[in-house]
Amino acid sequence: MHHEVRPSGYHNTLGPHDPILWVHSGDRITTDTVDARGFDHLRDQVAIRGNPMTGPFAVQEAEPGDALAVRILEITPSRTYGFTTASTAPHCVEPAFAASLPPNDLVEWRIDLAARQVHLVAPRPASCPELVLPLDPMLGCFGVAPARNQAISTATSGPYGGNMDYRACRAGAAIAFPVSTPGGLFYLGDVHAVQGDGEISGNGVEVSARVTFELHLLKQYELQWPRLIDSVGIATIGNARPLDQATQICTTEMLRWLPQEFGLEPAAAHLWLQQTVRYEVGNIFDPAYTMACRLPREFLPTSGPQPLLNLVRPWL
Amino acid sequence: MHHEVRPSGYHNTLGPHDPILWVHSGDRITTDTVDARGFDHLRDQVAIRGNPMTGPFAVQEAEPGDALAVRILEITPSRTYGFTTASTAPHCVEPAFAASLPPNDLVEWRIDLAARQVHLVAPRPASCPELVLPLDPMLGCFGVAPARNQAISTATSGPYGGNMDYRACRAGAAIAFPVSTPGGLFYLGDVHAVQGDGEISGNGVEVSARVTFELHLLKQYELQWPRLIDSVGIATIGNARPLDQATQICTTEMLRWLPQEFGLEPAAAHLWLQQTVRYEVGNIFDPAYTMACRLPREFLPTSGPQPLLNLVRPWL
Amino acid sequence: MHHEVRPSGYHNTLGPHDPILWVHSGDRITTDTVDARGFDHLRDQVAIRGNPMTGPFAVQEAEPGDALAVRILEITPSRTYGFTTASTAPHCVEPAFAASLPPNDLVEWRIDLAARQVHLVAPRPASCPELVLPLDPMLGCFGVAPARNQAISTATSGPYGGNMDYRACRAGAAIAFPVSTPGGLFYLGDVHAVQGDGEISGNGVEVSARVTFELHLLKQYELQWPRLIDSVGIATIGNARPLDQATQICTTEMLRWLPQEFGLEPAAAHLWLQQTVRYEVGNIFDPAYTMACRLPREFLPTSGPQPLLNLVRPWL
Amino acid sequence: MHHEVRPSGYHNTLGPHDPILWVHSGDRITTDTVDARGFDHLRDQVAIRGNPMTGPFAVQEAEPGDALAVRILEITPSRTYGFTTASTAPHCVEPAFAASLPPNDLVEWRIDLAARQVHLVAPRPASCPELVLPLDPMLGCFGVAPARNQAISTATSGPYGGNMDYRACRAGAAIAFPVSTPGGLFYLGDVHAVQGDGEISGNGVEVSARVTFELHLLKQYELQWPRLIDSVGIATIGNARPLDQATQICTTEMLRWLPQEFGLEPAAAHLWLQQTVRYEVGNIFDPAYTMACRLPREFLPTSGPQPLLNLVRPWL
Repeated sequence: MHHEVRPSGYHNTLGPHDPILWVHSGDRITTDTVDARGFDHLRDQVAIRGNPMTGPFAVQEAEPGDALAVRILEITPSRTYGFTTASTAPHCVEPAFAASLPPNDLVEWRIDLAARQVHLVAPRPASCPELVLPLDPMLGCFGVAPARNQAISTATSGPYGGNMDYRACRAGAAIAFPVSTPGGLFYLGDVHAVQGDGEISGNGVEVSARVTFELHLLKQYELQWPRLIDSVGIATIGNARPLDQATQICTTEMLRWLPQEFGLEPAAAHLWLQQTVRYEVGNIFDPAYTMACRLPREFLPTSGPQPLLNLVRPWL
Repeated sequence: MHHEVRPSGYHNTLGPHDPILWVHSGDRITTDTVDARGFDHLRDQVAIRGNPMTGPFAVQEAEPGDALAVRILEITPSRTYGFTTASTAPHCVEPAFAASLPPNDLVEWRIDLAARQVHLVAPRPASCPELVLPLDPMLGCFGVAPARNQAISTATSGPYGGNMDYRACRAGAAIAFPVSTPGGLFYLGDVHAVQGDGEISGNGVEVSARVTFELHLLKQYELQWPRLIDSVGIATIGNARPLDQATQICTTEMLRWLPQEFGLEPAAAHLWLQQTVRYEVGNIFDPAYTMACRLPREFLPTSGPQPLLNLVRPWL
Repeated sequence: MHHEVRPSGYHNTLGPHDPILWVHSGDRITTDTVDARGFDHLRDQVAIRGNPMTGPFAVQEAEPGDALAVRILEITPSRTYGFTTASTAPHCVEPAFAASLPPNDLVEWRIDLAARQVHLVAPRPASCPELVLPLDPMLGCFGVAPARNQAISTATSGPYGGNMDYRACRAGAAIAFPVSTPGGLFYLGDVHAVQGDGEISGNGVEVSARVTFELHLLKQYELQWPRLIDSVGIATIGNARPLDQATQICTTEMLRWLPQEFGLEPAAAHLWLQQTVRYEVGNIFDPAYTMACRLPREFLPTSGPQPLLNLVRPWL
Repeated sequence: MHHEVRPSGYHNTLGPHDPILWVHSGDRITTDTVDARGFDHLRDQVAIRGNPMTGPFAVQEAEPGDALAVRILEITPSRTYGFTTASTAPHCVEPAFAASLPPNDLVEWRIDLAARQVHLVAPRPASCPELVLPLDPMLGCFGVAPARNQAISTATSGPYGGNMDYRACRAGAAIAFPVSTPGGLFYLGDVHAVQGDGEISGNGVEVSARVTFELHLLKQYELQWPRLIDSVGIATIGNARPLDQATQICTTEMLRWLPQEFGLEPAAAHLWLQQTVRYEVGNIFDPAYTMACRLPREFLPTSGPQPLLNLVRPWL
């Protein structure tokens, strides 16, 4: 079933809020998201600044112990205006360099949907050549309600997802989260028209958007951190600070996933991963940093039950 | 001029050791490296374990304040036997997971130069499918003598290079280092037939190799950390722990490089980088971790004096 | 006014929960806390494991922009049974050492209130001499409702306090928090009969307790992180991971406090602190680590308005 | 035997330099150190800036596998002029606060040996009350030649000691290092008349000094990191970045020391330490940070062979 949902309110925490819609596993949803400061497609502020979320969407029969996978079908910016801020963040440069950062003014970008491009508009310093980037929309912040009935700010992230700002979270990807609350309670927002790795200025090109996705339930499936499947391969996502801990987390989650998905013994999982692994950086700006541990498609084993890959198989 | 050099001794530190050869800027050198444990192409141990280096090679007129760039022309494993160890390192996984790591036994790999493949040989657990990886040789450890007359173990890395284990350091890449000592004193070794990001088991597929490279001197060129140019684009390299600090370093070095190379004002460099930057992980195993900050080729400005790009321009 | 409050329920998050009592600034409260696993003075489990909190207590007229200070008057364990677990945590030792940790069994301690001692009871390995420690009760977890309507697990900590496990939080200390919610909403629990620095096994000697404290409101007083005053001097508290960030936070908060409290210019605050500062470690076990930046009593300036010191002056 | 040694040269690395004196285990040495910038008691610059070291002193029969303990008998500033710099270091405060640091000007302090005081002289901002601190001289940088024939800058530290800036390294303390080179090769310098924890401005009150110490050899004694004994108790010292890693190191070294010194089984060492441990911060300024893990004197077991305590027993 395909639901079209017009959001009437927004949340600045991921938590046990009342669902705006109950769906069945496999249902498709199209809805709208506002930008990171709460502005919609008309540039009207309709929500409180700080990654206001559309949702939550609850899935029938989702319970703790299950996995909830979102398959992202389409992310389309709903306006031409995008913004970032001008300076790299102080904590993303060497401390002694932080005193020389430029003013962190608002920067305007223009999204050209037809050409699938993002243009730097203003201010553009005299020495700065024209800058045109390929449009590459992604979800900056999305996930499910956290464990222990917490309600956690959309500024940060955790095992439940949240503000990960990982460029791979684009149309075509499926991301699975551990369910901690009945219904799972899926939220989304903070779309970026394009983003560099690390989100080092604290923003991608921030836009409102229309998003279409499906929610799929995998009963009794153990995972501790988000897992992603796309045309590049598979990835696990760790959210923590320092980046070292995020890296330990995603590496460990991959070492748990390989036996579970492909039937490798643990020792084989270590062997398999050591020379094939890739790392990708989500954000290094938020309270928790995001690192992804990737196994490229060409190195995926073909063995094992593949419960998560099977769930998304028809799409890939 | 092209020098063929047969090394007669090796160093386990990068430091102010006597040069084995003085060359002129632009000279080409072909030499041999032993593997990380000191074994040569005959599998005879000829050097002390711990990344023994071939070199140093001194460049006429190189002085502090200059940059010394190595252009890597060819890296060819000089034997079919490669090795790794079986387990992911304890500090690369979550601490509570470290108690369940498999024994860290030696693992044998076979390099097939003709097919340009690397095969996992043994031990291969029953559940482990056959694993064949594309050959992708790289320099694990190389660089110049450090500042302040230090002699630093080849286990670690710093502004002078060292044990960075960054996969982009393959044939076709040029890497520039700050000169701290007359002659610069370039060292190389620790070749990997293939390596995953992070070098999470503490090794790539370790081999002896024959390496051909050129050394180019750029007078009065200020850089604080290694800079790399290849067909993918440009990159700066930070070596430190935690990974956060390595990331701050390479990001800052890129924000210094963009004005110097392309004539961007500092504010323009920040703007230019924020949505185009990519990060790549070198090692997360050694005492200092390695992160690279990349600007892909398609996003390079065409402005400015481009002193470092010009140095390597004929090759790219 | 002195309120005696028998808690009827407990919370495992600090958040915008309904107050169990509204008090006036300056009121005194005596209440009971259960241990970290939810067991009371009779060793009956009456709350859910994971630092269940007594509270919240709301203070009339407390609003965002104010500070809420708790003066701890008395902490008395309400039973003789205390527990810890046997092993140092894997993340508190070197990663390669983590594989050799002993089983993390429950350990029993006995609190002797009359002698003010804490005895290690069992299991006690043959080689382990008798171990008797001075009783030194403290609040492991306490604080106010976090900003942005968040409800955050009592496993961790932040600007609002929480699970800091800092030994200085004992009777005689006053700790101020930033108010984020009308009423402030103060919580307390997780009493330790004694604790080492760092809480390296993940626990102090965990007990239920009776606690007496006062809540004082300081209107329009800006602070970003908890501030503590006791007979040793003053301290600021940073909660973050890695410990480096917690240290940056508490140092910065002290550099903000000195001008505000003692009328020092910022440059004078830097000078004043550099050779007098002390650091104290709270926990290095929880998701956020805790570091305190101290200025000892003998080095306190006597200048300035001293708004926070004046608030607690009569007691010290 | 008591040697009076007038240094004729200085080293800015700890490494395999030629000894200026060979002594026997137990010998006493009195010598002079210059300040961190190479100025002597006459304020003449006689050495290169950056913690120039007096030494090395070699001990007969010291070999890898042994421990070399220095007993510090006296540290006396040899002039009245001391200096620091005015600002807290950018990496010791929150990144966003770093842009507001004051100019890092030189600050003059006056050492009053008779009164055992250190006075802040100038510049002293108008709002800054007079500041007089108790004299508390300590060795900022000292240690032995590192492993693997390295020569490492005195800016940093490691298992061999170095620039630890730990306040407990004062007269009355004994510190043991692992010997990596025949003779051990002991260096010392960088005396501070007084220092705050963390060395957050990058300096204690820097002075030249006269130092008297003894060197004692403990044959075949395994230790991996420096160990300290003083009237407060015992401590292990970890040098690394981030501070988390330094903390893991010193905690682990203590968990190795307790069985070796007091005959505790490993499981007993964990139990013994968990509620008695204290942490002390050395520097958080240098490339490697320093954390000490302490067991206070009142909690020392009386069991076991106590090889290191016996070595220094007559003095304590």
